[in-house]
Amino acid sequence: MTRPAAASADTGSLVDRVLARDRTAVARAISLIERGDAGAGELLRGLRRNLGRAHRIGITGPPGVGKSSLVSALGAMIVGQGKSIGVLAIDPSSQFTHGAVLGDRVRMAELDRAGEIFIRSMATRGQSGGLGPRTDAAADVLDAAGYEWLFIESVGVGQVELDIRNLVDTTLVALVPESGDQVQAIKAGLMEIADVYVVNKCDRPGAGAMVAAVQSSVALQHHPDPAWLPRVMGAAVINNEGIAEILTELERHRQHLSTAGRLLQGRRLGMTARLRKRMEQQLAARLRDGGAGPELEPAVDRILAGEESLEQVSERCLSEWMEKLTGGTPRGSKT
Amino acid sequence: MTRPAAASADTGSLVDRVLARDRTAVARAISLIERGDAGAGELLRGLRRNLGRAHRIGITGPPGVGKSSLVSALGAMIVGQGKSIGVLAIDPSSQFTHGAVLGDRVRMAELDRAGEIFIRSMATRGQSGGLGPRTDAAADVLDAAGYEWLFIESVGVGQVELDIRNLVDTTLVALVPESGDQVQAIKAGLMEIADVYVVNKCDRPGAGAMVAAVQSSVALQHHPDPAWLPRVMGAAVINNEGIAEILTELERHRQHLSTAGRLLQGRRLGMTARLRKRMEQQLAARLRDGGAGPELEPAVDRILAGEESLEQVSERCLSEWMEKLTGGTPRGSKT
Repeated sequence: MTRPAAASADTGSLVDRVLARDRTAVARAISLIERGDAGAGELLRGLRRNLGRAHRIGITGPPGVGKSSLVSALGAMIVGQGKSIGVLAIDPSSQFTHGAVLGDRVRMAELDRAGEIFIRSMATRGQSGGLGPRTDAAADVLDAAGYEWLFIESVGVGQVELDIRNLVDTTLVALVPESGDQVQAIKAGLMEIADVYVVNKCDRPGAGAMVAAVQSSVALQHHPDPAWLPRVMGAAVINNEGIAEILTELERHRQHLSTAGRLLQGRRLGMTARLRKRMEQQLAARLRDGGAGPELEPAVDRILAGEESLEQVSERCLSEWMEKLTGGTPRGSKT
Repeated sequence: MTRPAAASADTGSLVDRVLARDRTAVARAISLIERGDAGAGELLRGLRRNLGRAHRIGITGPPGVGKSSLVSALGAMIVGQGKSIGVLAIDPSSQFTHGAVLGDRVRMAELDRAGEIFIRSMATRGQSGGLGPRTDAAADVLDAAGYEWLFIESVGVGQVELDIRNLVDTTLVALVPESGDQVQAIKAGLMEIADVYVVNKCDRPGAGAMVAAVQSSVALQHHPDPAWLPRVMGAAVINNEGIAEILTELERHRQHLSTAGRLLQGRRLGMTARLRKRMEQQLAARLRDGGAGPELEPAVDRILAGEESLEQVSERCLSEWMEKLTGGTPRGSKT
């Protein structure tokens, strides 16, 4: 109600310029979002009804498998076909890999004669791996701006790869023919989430065995969409080998999604998972603020003294907190 | 109240035999816990007042750095000193590494002339990486049984390594001199949690650089205990090099903890974090059961249609759920 008219006018003009795919405006919009600027909410409200046209693709996998090189190679091919591409590279520790990634970005920018590529690295740290509300909002900016292909590339470890599936239409997992990475990928649950698998660096020894191992895993898995059997593609991005085939496979998946209402169904599932997770996070924050602070100290000491189990104490403290919320007197309270 | 008398008597005798460090009883007790058997709770209640004597050490790090070989080498040395050792190896995908790990276990068991080593692999899968209530309870069995050293070895990725700190008195992070692992370890937040760092495979090229890189990271970090500066130890477990020094360093940390109430203070912090996490998990489960099921569907469709943001919908659904808990009429309900 007391929103400054000038800021609103600014944001309104920014919305229009983003929708017209003005690169400077797109960059400024993402910066607003990254900074958590007050105008970000209004901006996103302005873009909200122009979403859902981009084919959102998540690219993930262990560190060092060549994800950003793969995105660069795919981007070059997409631009060559006269299409536009937006890239969000989410790197939880970009300060360490910045050199290598920057090289790929520069090569990719050189290809962008027609201004049809927009690349943004979002440096974040912490356990969420950066796939939080800001990644989401930045992807919405690129979607609203009309980039036809939207790549979200995430280096994360563990849970991050699993979360990316909920943000995108198609998930690509990249691996390399090295047993360490394979074991790690399997541990991270990567073998259960992808629509397309790419074994990169297939010029190296062991590539055939790795492709076969991934194929066996895929055959055993229960893909969330029973009508889709993920393929395992070999590639050597450094020699530009296998890129056209990967792009075709991504298009084939998009084609698959466009039938029988699968695209909407997939987006519903992903959004439900994200909504549930967001509710859990907000609930945990409320708990931390009001029921899991210093008041836990006596309970912790009872557990350490062997008087009660962690499980018992947790149940009781939670019930007390919830009863406090309802305004009642907590059961078992001794005060 | 209606607990069968026979089961109680059985459990009572199992408690006594665990406290007497009867290997068969210890194995049976952990099996009860792993199966989630009804008798497990009673067993744990019986052991609860005999806890806290073991020096609990968490060993973690990326896959392939030789954690189980390190534990075997440390175990051999501990047994040589006439002390006892319990090992819990938590492997989220033990079916894949079983061969290699089993070899270490067999070698370790051969050393165990006096029955002073107890080794148990706990195979678990899923995002928690196995560091759940069952790991905790199994560690309690080994602690109550009087094993003086208690190693919890976890291969996990991402969050798992951070969680292990809350279960143990001393955290050891193992790395190898390979840049991929280093980058990955840094990403996983490993460089912020350890009391002791081990760079294994120091017979390989790049070891000196890796030790120096880890030392720089340690110098920059804020260790939770400002009076403790973690050391970075080089080792070549395969040649038994550096093992005695690591054991001495672990003892030095235990000695450090034994002064100024640090051991209890550390256990309080760890237990508080675990209690808070358990409460969050239980709360999330209650939310899933009662407020984040099919009733979210219309809300999800409003987000996808651009009518509301994820953030708005999440806040509202959560408030509605909490008001439902209090028995009130949800604000904003249109029914």
